[in-house]
This record gives sequence, C-alpha cells and structure tokens, in this order.
Amino acid sequence: MINRNPQLNENGALQHLLTTEGLPLSMLLHILDSAESFVGVTERDVKKIPLLRGKSIFNLFFESSTRTRTTFEIAAKRLSADVINLNIAVSAQSKGEALLDTVDNLSAMNADMFVVRHAQSGAAHLIAKHVRSGIHVINAGDGSHAHPTQALLDMFTIRRYKHDFHNLRVAIIGDILHSRVARSQIHALTTLGVPEVRVIAPKTLLPKMVERLGVHVYHDMAKGLKDVDVLMMLRLQNERMKGANLPSAEEYFKYYGLTAEKLSLARRDAIVMHPGPMNRGVEIDSAVADGKQSVILPQVTFGIAVRMAVMSILTGNQA
Amino acid sequence: MINRNPQLNENGALQHLLTTEGLPLSMLLHILDSAESFVGVTERDVKKIPLLRGKSIFNLFFESSTRTRTTFEIAAKRLSADVINLNIAVSAQSKGEALLDTVDNLSAMNADMFVVRHAQSGAAHLIAKHVRSGIHVINAGDGSHAHPTQALLDMFTIRRYKHDFHNLRVAIIGDILHSRVARSQIHALTTLGVPEVRVIAPKTLLPKMVERLGVHVYHDMAKGLKDVDVLMMLRLQNERMKGANLPSAEEYFKYYGLTAEKLSLARRDAIVMHPGPMNRGVEIDSAVADGKQSVILPQVTFGIAVRMAVMSILTGNQA
Amino acid sequence: MINRNPQLNENGALQHLLTTEGLPLSMLLHILDSAESFVGVTERDVKKIPLLRGKSIFNLFFESSTRTRTTFEIAAKRLSADVINLNIAVSAQSKGEALLDTVDNLSAMNADMFVVRHAQSGAAHLIAKHVRSGIHVINAGDGSHAHPTQALLDMFTIRRYKHDFHNLRVAIIGDILHSRVARSQIHALTTLGVPEVRVIAPKTLLPKMVERLGVHVYHDMAKGLKDVDVLMMLRLQNERMKGANLPSAEEYFKYYGLTAEKLSLARRDAIVMHPGPMNRGVEIDSAVADGKQSVILPQVTFGIAVRMAVMSILTGNQA
Repeated sequence: MINRNPQLNENGALQHLLTTEGLPLSMLLHILDSAESFVGVTERDVKKIPLLRGKSIFNLFFESSTRTRTTFEIAAKRLSADVINLNIAVSAQSKGEALLDTVDNLSAMNADMFVVRHAQSGAAHLIAKHVRSGIHVINAGDGSHAHPTQALLDMFTIRRYKHDFHNLRVAIIGDILHSRVARSQIHALTTLGVPEVRVIAPKTLLPKMVERLGVHVYHDMAKGLKDVDVLMMLRLQNERMKGANLPSAEEYFKYYGLTAEKLSLARRDAIVMHPGPMNRGVEIDSAVADGKQSVILPQVTFGIAVRMAVMSILTGNQA
Repeated sequence: MINRNPQLNENGALQHLLTTEGLPLSMLLHILDSAESFVGVTERDVKKIPLLRGKSIFNLFFESSTRTRTTFEIAAKRLSADVINLNIAVSAQSKGEALLDTVDNLSAMNADMFVVRHAQSGAAHLIAKHVRSGIHVINAGDGSHAHPTQALLDMFTIRRYKHDFHNLRVAIIGDILHSRVARSQIHALTTLGVPEVRVIAPKTLLPKMVERLGVHVYHDMAKGLKDVDVLMMLRLQNERMKGANLPSAEEYFKYYGLTAEKLSLARRDAIVMHPGPMNRGVEIDSAVADGKQSVILPQVTFGIAVRMAVMSILTGNQA
Repeated sequence: MINRNPQLNENGALQHLLTTEGLPLSMLLHILDSAESFVGVTERDVKKIPLLRGKSIFNLFFESSTRTRTTFEIAAKRLSADVINLNIAVSAQSKGEALLDTVDNLSAMNADMFVVRHAQSGAAHLIAKHVRSGIHVINAGDGSHAHPTQALLDMFTIRRYKHDFHNLRVAIIGDILHSRVARSQIHALTTLGVPEVRVIAPKTLLPKMVERLGVHVYHDMAKGLKDVDVLMMLRLQNERMKGANLPSAEEYFKYYGLTAEKLSLARRDAIVMHPGPMNRGVEIDSAVADGKQSVILPQVTFGIAVRMAVMSILTGNQA
C-alpha cells in the first residue's frame, strides 16, 4: 500500500499536521474531541498540565507572526513543554544557512516538534519529509497553501455552536485566491460532511476552477449569504489592496464588507467567524465583529485548546 | 458611592496597577510590606516559588524597553508564571490591528495579566477599562504619564534606608516635564507623608503649574539640595538633548549634573537614586553614581521584589 | 601565588568559562566527563533535570546569533533554569547604556550566570572581572578571540570517535585568521595532548607567527591532509569573501573546499567536523558534509550536553 498522506504513518497515526487535505474524518474528529478536554484545562485556575514536560518545541517562524506564534507558545507552555522561539528571517537565514541545514541542526539538539511558518507553500511538507522519525511538524501557515490549525479551530467552533455538520450552509467570504485559511477550511468542511460550502468573492480574488474543490461560487453577497448558517470571513491582506486586484478598501467594503444589513440576509442564528487580525471597516464592520452573532473571540480561545490537542496527539502522550 | 479609582474594585482591592495617583496609603504600605518577603525569595539559592504556577502573563510592549521587560519577566518567572513576550511594534500593530483587538485576542487566550508599556499616555488605563474582570493590568510606563512600579521600588528603597517617610526632604532632579517616573514618585511620596518634596530643574524642563502637585520648585541645585535626605535623579532622554529645551549635554551637566561637589550640599547621609539607565556625565557623574551614597543598584534588586509583590497581590494569591 | 587564570578561583575551581587557553588538562577532562552524563539526559523521554531550578541565566547577546543562543537556551532549560534572552544590540545599548552598567543592572536582579556573545574580543573577560563572586560568565564567542564551548564540544566529539588524543593528527582548515573557533580548538587540542595539530589555509587567512601556537602550517590541502585523523573545517564568513583576502568563493572552493577527492587524502577513518552554519560549496562540498565520515550533526548534539556540563559545573551543583 502506498502511503499517500505524509501526515500519517503506516498505522494511520498522525505524525505531522501539514494540511487538512486528505486528513481522514476519524482523525479530524479525534482532534476535535481531544480539544474538548483541553478547553477545560484553559479554564482552570492552574492552566498547566505536565503532559509534554521535558519536550523541546521549536517555533520556527520564517515569516513573522507574533499572534500565531503566541498561540502555539501558550499551548506548548500549558502542556509544560520547553519552547524555543526562532525568528529565522533575522538570523541564520541571513547567514545563508539553508532551510534544511537549520532543521537538521535543531533536530540534532533533540527537538521533539517544529511549528513552522513560512512564506513559501510547501515548506512544512519539505521539513516533515526531511526530519527523522519521532520529530513532529505542525504547519502554522505556508504561503497560500494551508493553515490547518486555523481550520481545525474553526471546525471546533462550528461544532460548538451548530453541533452537527450535516445540515449546514457555510459561506467563506473574501480573498479566497491568496488564502491558506480558506483552502484548509474547505477541505475540513467537506470531510466533516457539510453539504453546502459557498465561496463569495470578486472574480479577481478567486482561484481558477475553484469549483473543483466542491464549493459553490458567488460573486454577490445578497445571493451568497441567503440561508447561510456560518459566515467565515477572510482577512483582506493590506498588500492586496494596493495591487491591481482591488479598486480600494472602501469599494471592497461596499460590496463585500460584512455589515449588519448584509448579515441579515443569512439565517437569523448564523454565526460570524474571522481568523483575525480583522481589518475593521474593510472586510467586516465593527457592529458585526462585536455583535451578538460574532464568535470571533471564542475562536481564539478554542484555538489554544485545539493546538494543545494536536501537540499532545502528535507526541503520542495523549491521555 | 462612585468608584473614582479604576485600579480598585468596590471592596478596595487592587485590580490593576496603573498609577500611584490616588492609590490609598494602606495599599501603598501593603505593597511595600509584601515586597519585603519577596526580597528574601530573590536571595535564596532556589529563587522560585509556585505562587503563580499556571498563570499566563503577557509582556505587552508597544514601546521597546529590554531593561524594563526583563524586570517583569524575571519577577513573573520567579513566581513560576508562564511569560509571553510580545513586542507589538514589530508585528500585529504593523498589520494594522488595533490596540484593543490585540488585547481582546490575548484575553481570549485566557490571559491572567498584561504588563503594558506604551508610548502614549493612558494606554494602560484604556486596556484596564476594557478587559474583563479577572484580568489584571500593570502599567510599565505610558508616555509621560505614569510608571508606578518604578515609583514603588523607589519608595521601598527610601524606606529601607531612611525607615520613616515623615521627616524627609526629598528632591527630584532633572527633566520633570517629560518624566512619567517623576509624576509617579511625587504622588507616592505625598501619600506616604513626606513633608517636603522638591523638584529641581531648568524652567524648560518643568511642567506648567507643577506646584499644584504639592512640590517646591527650585531652578538652582545649590539651593534645592540644601538639607535634602534623598536625591532622586531622572534620566535625561537623549532625544530631549537635541531639542530646543536644552543647550547641550555639557551645559546641562554643568548646572544640573550631580557631582560630588553638589552632593555635598545635601545632608551627609543623603542617598542618591536613579531609575536607570544612567547617562554618566550628563545627569550624574560616575563618582557619585558609583559612590558610597548611591543606592542605584539596590533599587534594581528591590524592583524585582516589588514587581513580584504587585503581581501576587493582583492575582489574589498573596500568601 | 598569583592567580593568572581569571577563570579559576584560588582552589582551581572553574568560576567562568572564557577561553580554552590556560585551562588545565584536569579541568578539560572534568568538563568532558560531565558532558557524558548529560548526553544521556538529552536522549531521555523527559529531557529535563532540576539541577538549576530557580537559577536565572541571562543570554546576553550583543551580536546576534540565533543558533548559538538557542544551544545555550536549550541547555539551560533542560537544567530547569529560568532563561532570559537579551538582544542588546537593539535595546539598552542604543540608549547609550554602557556595557558594564548593563551587567551591573542584571547582576542586581540576582543573576546567576551570563552567557555573553560580543563582537569585540575581550568582552566576556571584562564582564567576568567586573561581576561579583557567585556570578558566572560563559563566553559564547568574543570577536576573533575565543569560543570555548565550541572547542569543548569539538573535543568531546573527537574523543567519542577517536577515544584517545595522544596519537592523532588533526587539521584545522580555512580562515584561521578571523576564527575564534580555531584559536580555542588549538589551545584545547594542545592541552589534551594531540601530538600534531596542523592548520591549512591560504597565507592571507593565517595570523602572523601562527606557528607560535604550536601548530604546523600548510598552504596546500594535498600535503596538509595526508594521514590526518580529524578534519576541522572552519566557516568562511561571507563578509571575508567580499574583501581583498580572497579572490572568490569559487576560487576558494577549488583550492580549500573539502571534496570527497581531497578527503580521500586523509586517513580512511578520518572524521570531518564543522562548527556550522556551513557554506556548502564554499568550504565544504555537500557530498562530504552529508557523507559517512561527517560527524557534523553529532557535534551539535554533544554541544547541548557540553553546555549543560559547563553550566552545572559553574554553579557548583554538579551531581
């Protein structure tokens, strides 16, 4: 049997978390179920358990992201691991050291896990293929390819508020073209059995043949939001707004920014999600971001638990 | 009853440490007394107690200050807390994320405490008003407004060497105008009952109507230092020296730099303090900085104990 | 008796690790023997022992080196110490605070150990002379002077693979002139009794009168590598390649780059070492770097154990 999924070993156990694409339903559910127990840990007075004591986890950020790094750092510390932050952009890489030499070096220091953020798609896969057995890699975002822990925390959030995936209409709204988050969300939603996943975006912000991912395409919010249960907003990267893809932030907000008015087109009990950080007044209005239907901050809370779950499953110490 | 002090809850317990202004005498003394016990911890062979185990403390530095960040990081680690350093200037903020969105995010990660440094006066207050009950904010310096832990460690140092506040003449010397340290010192000294607080500075470095704070104003070191028990030097910011407020560093040193000669005008047992880092040869001569009357390094030592005390009082775990 | 070695106290106990020069044979062997036991710790499931619990170790890096900082950070964390990273280039120093004022400050925070990296030769010595008894300094590289922990891990690696120093031919190859690593290696090899230490380099990359260090000088790889047991490659600094000392990286590789062909001139069981990060295709060919005779990654692994050994010997808690 050819092992087509580099994330799983021959027994189907999770070795790395690189993408939600091809992750079996049972594994998705296992991660979500594990995360439930970690939500409890993060709410305790002493938010710390000794599960990963003596493990060395490296936050290997080739692309700067204090926010994402922080979520992994907290998750690891609450599991009692030793965490080492490496911002490679400003150090070894500037000395010309190659990516895999850096990884080999840190592996030789008896690393247990790498949390990798990189501007290039495929970087985490490359590292995962390279490291020796027993070292685990978590993709914390690679180029426009994947951001699986973000998608998993989104799934966790949806399940918390909607309980069942099998009767949902979910809309992903915004810059699908450049979004690793959107890709990872679509794969996870599909595997979890969501019958209708929509993407809503201007043509210039949609990948070619996006329909092949099994989604329904809308260019118009009025139509796309109709009867939707879950709205997953995407962050509009500032750098995109200056490019040829978009006329202006104001123009974008007018057509695709989520306002209370547009939200009223969805189901009355629809939830609003955003991976953060938000551009208020660009892709989302503050009234919605801070409104009753927003679950944006719970997403963050669940994100810590989901990362703790992934880390503990990977190290095989899951209680 | 209107709760006019955002630092205290309705029972008068400390919720945040934002400023020494309006902090009741009993609370000041409670912090100083608690710090006494933590001085012992920092002198032990194993400088660590499990008081804040499992707590998540975020050093939220919107203005870079390795030195101040280090004091809080050490204090937190010696209390066994998990510490996360965030230098926001170089990350989220540059993505356009607003201050309060950042705080909301970190709060959603189940933060217990924020140590906030910000170039704008009022930033720590803004955050304290915003966070939910149970999350504590320590102001580690906001603009030219306040730096309460510095003032508290100064008070601790004075008490250690002078025992009683009620018969002291204290002079604060230097750039009062831009100094958050001076403001916090004046409020604390006044509340603790120091009968005579003097400020000594050129007119261009004094706030308008500074007398309203209850201090005596001197423009001349010879007069201002006469019979003084405590000299609190201020750091002259380099950026001020280039401005219109001052002719030159040399000129400043001639008139306001503390030399052995000028120090001899104070009481023979007067102590010399400085919040650091010092500009030797500008506001203070090395002979004085390293001299017998200097208590500048003990200030640093006590600073760790004072921060441990504040952190433990805030989290309500004070033994 | 005059204590000529600032690293040792009057009883010959190690107080600081500043250089391998003048370090007695017994002390070298004590460090290597201690490191043996720590190799075991780094291979355990829980890679952590409580030896330095409650100790405060400061990584004081005045010159940026994520890689070296990481090795010390991991070593300290696996000993359960509290570690504080300070990148001084970007903070206090830019406020004009002098080196020794910074050190005094951190010492006043009850520091136990400073790991110092500085672009200027002698910086670690200066700090070691300055700090009070009980605070230990490890030189993590100062200018072109010394890098003792690198040399010690190299000795550990040689002993592991060659067992005995007394019948070895060791060649150090590359930019001897600017290399603190080479200086520290030569002193350690000589003290450990290696009968023949060679240096191989173009004349422009050799210090004047290098023979005085007791080494044999070669300008030609064919002659220099003959019958050698250990090849210690040096990193060619990028900045050197642009200077007048070298025609080009390609030219350098042709004459001094280690290829399989050149390696075949050494003994068949010779080992190849490199302190990293490597410039593949400049001082070393990938076929050799990743080849059977390379012990470059084991060097990294042993480096953690050696640093743990040094830290634990210094704090006098060595079990």
